[in-house]
Amino acid sequence: MSDIYEKIMDLAKRRGFIWPTSECYGSVAGFIDYGPLGSMMKRNIENAWRRFYVVQEGYYEIECPTIGQEDIFIASGHVKGFSDKMCQCPACREYLRADHVAEAHQVAGASAMNKEELEAALCRLLCPACEEPLGPVEVFNFNLMFETSIGPGSQRRGYLRPETAQGMFTDFQRLLRFYRDKLPFGAVQIGKSYRNEISPRQGMIRLREFTQAEAEIFVHPGKKEHPQFSRYAGYPVPLLGITQQEERQPPVTSTMAQAVANGMIANEYVAYYLALTHDLLVSIGVDPLKLRFRQHLRDERAHYAEDCWDAEIFSERFGWVETVGIADRTDYDLRAHERQSGERFVVFIPYEIPRRERRIRVVPEMGALGPRFRGKAKAVADALSLCNPGPEGAHLTIDGEEVFISPDLYRVREEEVEVPGCEITPHVIEPSYGIDRMIYAVLEHTFHEEIVDDEERRVLRLPPSVAPVQVAVFPLMNRDGLPEMARDITLRIKEQGLLAEYDDSGAIGRRYRRQDEVGTPFAITVDYDSKEDNTVTLRDRDSMRQVRVPIDGIAGLVRCLIEGSRSFDGL
Amino acid sequence: MSDIYEKIMDLAKRRGFIWPTSECYGSVAGFIDYGPLGSMMKRNIENAWRRFYVVQEGYYEIECPTIGQEDIFIASGHVKGFSDKMCQCPACREYLRADHVAEAHQVAGASAMNKEELEAALCRLLCPACEEPLGPVEVFNFNLMFETSIGPGSQRRGYLRPETAQGMFTDFQRLLRFYRDKLPFGAVQIGKSYRNEISPRQGMIRLREFTQAEAEIFVHPGKKEHPQFSRYAGYPVPLLGITQQEERQPPVTSTMAQAVANGMIANEYVAYYLALTHDLLVSIGVDPLKLRFRQHLRDERAHYAEDCWDAEIFSERFGWVETVGIADRTDYDLRAHERQSGERFVVFIPYEIPRRERRIRVVPEMGALGPRFRGKAKAVADALSLCNPGPEGAHLTIDGEEVFISPDLYRVREEEVEVPGCEITPHVIEPSYGIDRMIYAVLEHTFHEEIVDDEERRVLRLPPSVAPVQVAVFPLMNRDGLPEMARDITLRIKEQGLLAEYDDSGAIGRRYRRQDEVGTPFAITVDYDSKEDNTVTLRDRDSMRQVRVPIDGIAGLVRCLIEGSRSFDGL
Repeated sequence: MSDIYEKIMDLAKRRGFIWPTSECYGSVAGFIDYGPLGSMMKRNIENAWRRFYVVQEGYYEIECPTIGQEDIFIASGHVKGFSDKMCQCPACREYLRADHVAEAHQVAGASAMNKEELEAALCRLLCPACEEPLGPVEVFNFNLMFETSIGPGSQRRGYLRPETAQGMFTDFQRLLRFYRDKLPFGAVQIGKSYRNEISPRQGMIRLREFTQAEAEIFVHPGKKEHPQFSRYAGYPVPLLGITQQEERQPPVTSTMAQAVANGMIANEYVAYYLALTHDLLVSIGVDPLKLRFRQHLRDERAHYAEDCWDAEIFSERFGWVETVGIADRTDYDLRAHERQSGERFVVFIPYEIPRRERRIRVVPEMGALGPRFRGKAKAVADALSLCNPGPEGAHLTIDGEEVFISPDLYRVREEEVEVPGCEITPHVIEPSYGIDRMIYAVLEHTFHEEIVDDEERRVLRLPPSVAPVQVAVFPLMNRDGLPEMARDITLRIKEQGLLAEYDDSGAIGRRYRRQDEVGTPFAITVDYDSKEDNTVTLRDRDSMRQVRVPIDGIAGLVRCLIEGSRSFDGL
Repeated sequence: MSDIYEKIMDLAKRRGFIWPTSECYGSVAGFIDYGPLGSMMKRNIENAWRRFYVVQEGYYEIECPTIGQEDIFIASGHVKGFSDKMCQCPACREYLRADHVAEAHQVAGASAMNKEELEAALCRLLCPACEEPLGPVEVFNFNLMFETSIGPGSQRRGYLRPETAQGMFTDFQRLLRFYRDKLPFGAVQIGKSYRNEISPRQGMIRLREFTQAEAEIFVHPGKKEHPQFSRYAGYPVPLLGITQQEERQPPVTSTMAQAVANGMIANEYVAYYLALTHDLLVSIGVDPLKLRFRQHLRDERAHYAEDCWDAEIFSERFGWVETVGIADRTDYDLRAHERQSGERFVVFIPYEIPRRERRIRVVPEMGALGPRFRGKAKAVADALSLCNPGPEGAHLTIDGEEVFISPDLYRVREEEVEVPGCEITPHVIEPSYGIDRMIYAVLEHTFHEEIVDDEERRVLRLPPSVAPVQVAVFPLMNRDGLPEMARDITLRIKEQGLLAEYDDSGAIGRRYRRQDEVGTPFAITVDYDSKEDNTVTLRDRDSMRQVRVPIDGIAGLVRCLIEGSRSFDGL
């Protein structure tokens, strides 16, 4: 008996959702093709994401290249630290992910082990590929970025980006100007990211090329109240906090206002995006009973992060799968790029009333400096006014040469100046979504098998906004003008911007089943009565109920049903 | 005085259309970032493309990885032949594209020269980078694909795809099943492609990472009549055919029916997509007076192609730029993948009435073969029934060994069989669009400077469907409830799926100019009268005319204006 994953992958291949890539050459693990229906569903899910982040939140989308120059990933830490521990089986030469091999053999805590610990653990284990003993293998780091070179002669090293996020950071200064120098603001990106996994074996869950949707929201470090927090303040979310994990308790369901008030979630921004993510995932078809938010434990969280949660979705095949990450990354990313690039990534925050502050000013005595330093006098004066010399003189470095400046060459003056504002480095709130995992979760959660009229019916209960075909149109017979009427209705529905499909092949019952299987929420049948009374049958996928509705205005009606402003039961 | 390209790039950077990528690290030639407005405009243009190819033509979109395994590009010919001729300056070590250097020095026919001819030509020229003589440099081929390796230990070589097309070819068998084994059908893809250009210096025109929109339409080789040809039969298109080019004549404008009838265009399919491309490009804002279709000359066209045309768009900076290619590629691609993969890429075409055909059948005499060949008798019999032996015996190769089979070991029988149909390899019609070049052309063609009220007005006359902001909403003053009313209108317009922007900063005149510059077609101003009579001012970007319209129903009205079902002049 095949499990649900196999059933879904069979359906996905047969009906054009997902195919192994370049199958005629044996395909490659970690890569998939989205077929006609999968690609449509993917775009629907991406657009659902945009309705939340671009339309509702007002964050503009940008599009950066997938190939990035090395500096970016030195700054981000990926060149140094983005790697998995790997070993090679001495018998079959297969490359293996060391921690996964140990975990598969029930070695506890394998993912946190260092090289030596893993080597000790693997020594006693069998290779999962050839089942020979691994023995004393070497464990080494393998960087997961795909590398390439830009231009001829390996002039410049490039990497395929491991996340879309860096584009928003390197564009920070431009974005700041676009948003007219005011915090908070956000930018988002939906696009391909790449991780050269060592031996991916989990279908759509672990891809080497995948689609991310990420938002980077730049906020004032002292103002982490979300301006629209009231929208989600009362929204309940199942939370598996650090405490629940340490005490092996189940998740607690808490409103976001509560969770912020009692300190379970660090601030309103993080809480707001937890709730928004719950809202979004349920709206695209994730089962709310199979969705929870797990907080990163202190030793699992990056040292700079103030708080970090994963939206985890339960899969019958893969268990709880991390699908979205929501983190308060503080000023880590902007400061890292500042250090690497030498540019400044700050925002000027004007005070409401300019402040008067006392400042020390160093005034060089040019009359004395001139004769003493001649051509270098200007450089010495400039360096002096930037340093903070005591009464005993100052040591400066001028053109690489150390110079002592005695106290008679300058005066130190204290003065009161008007300070209009200050510069701050914004903090970053980052919700990061794995689109492919979302698609798989929706397929798994909406897939149902049931017996109808003694026959098995397979149905994807996709929300209408996500379904790749939103309405199917059938002529009952392939003659007598019925096809023409059905084609005309199809066209009118398409003109409303909906995804309509005409199908005239096979018995009506088979056509319904075919549409049920790909999740088409509504089907229209044109029959002989349609020619008499200008009505058609409209069928609802889930209840399988049918009603008679006038052809006139049917495109508008279907649009309302799909947008949710009318319900089928009310017809 | 700066030329139009510099003006547009200045505007594009300032207003968030296009930015140099990872500028803080010095950017990289051949890569760009789309900023907030550019990314929106790009999506609008991609969606315009989908309205033609996915909605109107009914071709489904698929999405394949950007990294492909080597076999794909061996089959497609890119591993062997996708290269440019390069040399390195002996003085400054700069890599140079050899034909471009020669062309810049007015060497005629440089692009068609071979290695030796180019070396001879370059010998007398100066390096464009350092202006030292190049002397006797070596010219060599540089493959333009970005290379990477998949998995650890360089296990498998991968390339970043140089075009999206190959995905539709490698998925051919799956697509055929999806379309229920019937020709014609098509599949499209919009996505990133990569060419590791030697030294790109033309901004958005020559990118190393760019976006393509390609359609592959699979047709019966004997049926190149487009089923919807009547749609474009009378559509006039400016054609620069082979004859016009050879005789140095200007383009002729011809309807598609004429051009097919007189043999200028090879068939209806090619003609149909020329006209559709003209229609599409003009609809997104390309100036029809700066658009022509140039036929590939016989020696420029790939040997297998039956016909090939480029849509060329005139740029003041770059001259005529090839932006779309439309080709009848015959069965070249499918046969190439057939050879490389060993799979069959054919369609079974049933005859209307099964045909009776006479066939030769070879019947091995097992009674005689058995004793003679023992263990190999079965292999001999199988080989015999597949060969076509004469009355004098047959030479076969069995397990690598040549064997002579005398005529007494088999009988040749002629029989009549019923043949239900035949297998054919479809031909491919390929329209291929460069999205980034389209975006640049639209910016250049819609950019205008004019004097209004003694001030210079910069305006992008973008079609409403392409504009990144479709309607701007301003409160006249930032108080007295006007901002609330304006925000409410903004929200209602967004709910219609339109791109609306609220702006309350600066004088009204400045806000209008700001929107004109980014091509926003309509602006709404909420003023004190609005509170009294519930009307607002609606302003048209191009005429700068303003009319008073009721707030009630304004979202619907704006939607009609943008979709084109109502006109501003009619208000």
